[in-house]
Amino acid sequence: MLSTHVFLAELAGTFILILMGSGVCANVALKGTLGSAAGWLAISFGWGLGVYCGVWIAGISGAHLNPAVTLGLLINPDAAEYAPGVAKTFANTMLYFLAQLVGAFLGAVGTWLAYKKHLDDKQNAGNQLGVFATGPAIRSYGWNVVSEIFGTFVLVFVIAGFGKTPHELGPLAVALLVVAIGLSLGGATGYAINPTRDLGPRLAHAILPIKGKGSSDWAYAWVPIVGPVIGGLLGGVGAGLLF
Amino acid sequence: MLSTHVFLAELAGTFILILMGSGVCANVALKGTLGSAAGWLAISFGWGLGVYCGVWIAGISGAHLNPAVTLGLLINPDAAEYAPGVAKTFANTMLYFLAQLVGAFLGAVGTWLAYKKHLDDKQNAGNQLGVFATGPAIRSYGWNVVSEIFGTFVLVFVIAGFGKTPHELGPLAVALLVVAIGLSLGGATGYAINPTRDLGPRLAHAILPIKGKGSSDWAYAWVPIVGPVIGGLLGGVGAGLLF
Amino acid sequence: MLSTHVFLAELAGTFILILMGSGVCANVALKGTLGSAAGWLAISFGWGLGVYCGVWIAGISGAHLNPAVTLGLLINPDAAEYAPGVAKTFANTMLYFLAQLVGAFLGAVGTWLAYKKHLDDKQNAGNQLGVFATGPAIRSYGWNVVSEIFGTFVLVFVIAGFGKTPHELGPLAVALLVVAIGLSLGGATGYAINPTRDLGPRLAHAILPIKGKGSSDWAYAWVPIVGPVIGGLLGGVGAGLLF
Amino acid sequence: MLSTHVFLAELAGTFILILMGSGVCANVALKGTLGSAAGWLAISFGWGLGVYCGVWIAGISGAHLNPAVTLGLLINPDAAEYAPGVAKTFANTMLYFLAQLVGAFLGAVGTWLAYKKHLDDKQNAGNQLGVFATGPAIRSYGWNVVSEIFGTFVLVFVIAGFGKTPHELGPLAVALLVVAIGLSLGGATGYAINPTRDLGPRLAHAILPIKGKGSSDWAYAWVPIVGPVIGGLLGGVGAGLLF
Repeated sequence: MLSTHVFLAELAGTFILILMGSGVCANVALKGTLGSAAGWLAISFGWGLGVYCGVWIAGISGAHLNPAVTLGLLINPDAAEYAPGVAKTFANTMLYFLAQLVGAFLGAVGTWLAYKKHLDDKQNAGNQLGVFATGPAIRSYGWNVVSEIFGTFVLVFVIAGFGKTPHELGPLAVALLVVAIGLSLGGATGYAINPTRDLGPRLAHAILPIKGKGSSDWAYAWVPIVGPVIGGLLGGVGAGLLF
Repeated sequence: MLSTHVFLAELAGTFILILMGSGVCANVALKGTLGSAAGWLAISFGWGLGVYCGVWIAGISGAHLNPAVTLGLLINPDAAEYAPGVAKTFANTMLYFLAQLVGAFLGAVGTWLAYKKHLDDKQNAGNQLGVFATGPAIRSYGWNVVSEIFGTFVLVFVIAGFGKTPHELGPLAVALLVVAIGLSLGGATGYAINPTRDLGPRLAHAILPIKGKGSSDWAYAWVPIVGPVIGGLLGGVGAGLLF
Repeated sequence: MLSTHVFLAELAGTFILILMGSGVCANVALKGTLGSAAGWLAISFGWGLGVYCGVWIAGISGAHLNPAVTLGLLINPDAAEYAPGVAKTFANTMLYFLAQLVGAFLGAVGTWLAYKKHLDDKQNAGNQLGVFATGPAIRSYGWNVVSEIFGTFVLVFVIAGFGKTPHELGPLAVALLVVAIGLSLGGATGYAINPTRDLGPRLAHAILPIKGKGSSDWAYAWVPIVGPVIGGLLGGVGAGLLF
Repeated sequence: MLSTHVFLAELAGTFILILMGSGVCANVALKGTLGSAAGWLAISFGWGLGVYCGVWIAGISGAHLNPAVTLGLLINPDAAEYAPGVAKTFANTMLYFLAQLVGAFLGAVGTWLAYKKHLDDKQNAGNQLGVFATGPAIRSYGWNVVSEIFGTFVLVFVIAGFGKTPHELGPLAVALLVVAIGLSLGGATGYAINPTRDLGPRLAHAILPIKGKGSSDWAYAWVPIVGPVIGGLLGGVGAGLLF
């Protein structure tokens, strides 16, 4: 079973990831911040570098920070374990999911604290929700799932290639991959590509007191879970076949 | 002859490259996406990081992902083989080209799926084509070829220098080179710098059902083939002379 | 006690950091410069790469360049010394602070010289101050401190992870961390995340002759000292617990 | 004396640097290009990555690509030679300068060819000159020299630190340094920080047939020579003292 140390590292890494990722959404999407309207390139680099920050923290858990990555590793026979000394068992899988969900929720609470005055300052309710949860540019559940599948497939498939080519990029390797996915495949749904990245902050949005907040849009909440789960499994299968 | 494994790696790498590259064009060029109008810096980083993603996947084929790179290696006496254990034979050259073309076509199909609802949503026909194929800012076939020659020359010439200076950047080295070419030499023609990058997606544009789509502009299609072929050969010759 | 060489390296590194960081603020915030209104992404990369430049210079002092980093190391039992051969003594701590403050002040003087004609050219007094000191988007001292705590906590906590994952990024590792903090957590207060980064240039603003300059806003000056000190200590404690 | 191989590498590297650097200016400054008005961040990354491309090519000459770097090495006692096996003699110094000037001139000719149709397409004469040469935002020769001194000092001083901290960034190290200088210290004069970067393309502007071109502004041409020479020497002296 997962050691407490590994569990806490995975939780802390996901906390940092979502603190930073929700943070860049707050900075760019809300009015009145210093980075207001900084654009999609800022969003993409912000999330990519949010992953970067989280990965440095979570080295000993393998820094999945994402149930889709955990599932991709689970299904990929080329991956022997979750992290050095951490076996691919059912109990460990559940503990990764728990650490990721709690970390993501707490990260969103952190963003809420860091941008408290702005979140409460007569914001558009859609932009408030956008700080926490993803949403589609054109609502069409089936096609939204397809977009999330592609983004998550690329994430898990390419990560599996990191060990096949010599490099010393460390956590920068996955950071740039996430920047790429944001720029290229994020424009239709806001690229959750990670079930807890959406669910944790959406829960935070539902629970936290935010002035003038609207619906947490639970009707959409299954899309950024189902799409990434399918995409992650396909990425793991693809990697197992190719590598 | 090329092993199936090498063929599939080259195909998969080019698939990812074009999925991401066409993807960033869709995100930036189409109206209504989250990254709409994000600008040329986003386009340049999107394509550069698309190459980055593809290269991680295609390590065992040497990750050419581009017939101009294959030709540059073919003509450069300093390059002993296409990839470790893959000889520079006529049959292998043809198989690289085939993998690259099929991968590029499939990548564009992937972009079409990921942005299906946006592509069909009352878009400008020129922007729809711009998701798939390159086109000149000022149409002038001769000078357009010249622009493509310069971009591809720099690509193939500089790649040949990667082995001459110690570094551990892995696929980031070529990613940043492609960002550079986009920023500096991409403004006149949209920098195909790769014959299959243009031909594969242009075929996809011609075949796929896209609401309101216009011409696939076949009159221009030879430019992003001839320019990159000449530029790639010159880059290989230049590298052979300098290194 | 700190050798003169270590003291000068820390001073020179902080000088370069603030010369570059105040420089990007001048370039983006003032009217009439070539980079005027280049946006928050430019600001974030400018400060991140300013840290990058300073770290190359200050290798022998460990390149803290920031009292919050020094305090984080002091409190983190996992960090044995400030730099190879530099003990965590009270005298050394004070000398780090002094080098950082003098370096930051001189860096701001350098920015003043490099942008002399623009600073004097009928600028808005708020933008003039913004070249030197941070300021809140919404003034609320308590919440401004909270924002600074989060940014500095991430800085010190993640830096402590750099030694736990293999990489060869050198000073790029911390540069990208600072870009991340700017994009994600900098939008409420302008992310001092470093007491001398704010105090040194604010002193320069107060002392230097700048045409039409307004108040140096000393009422706010304690926020970017107290927030980063708390955040740095928390980051050091967190790192000590996790790693 | 410099071998032909070293001379050609330095020439080719400077050619690529200026082809890319003038190229990004053409793409961003001219109307009608695909990257028109992409902004200062694009300019800064374009030049930084132009250096990146040139450095890969010129490894055997040490990739100075800039007389200010050559002078900084000449005066810095910590630098034993110009490149492995290349002594710091007067004849070699002159040959470096010659290779840099010829390469810069030819690079600008390349940019002219790659953007021929746009350069001739009813452009503003100031923007045409801006493709080739630097110019001040506020003309004030003395302060313009000061700005160039600061930029070049940082370039040469920080480069001298590259060997003091372990890393495997290869040519990316200097690329990011140049991005930093552009963002932070480039806003007053357009950061020549390299005498031949300005003089070579300015000569090309004077000689080449460009429809509607105006003055080559020779009155300013001494500033981007004198400033970088002083800054490079100061950087070399500073490095010799600190390291």
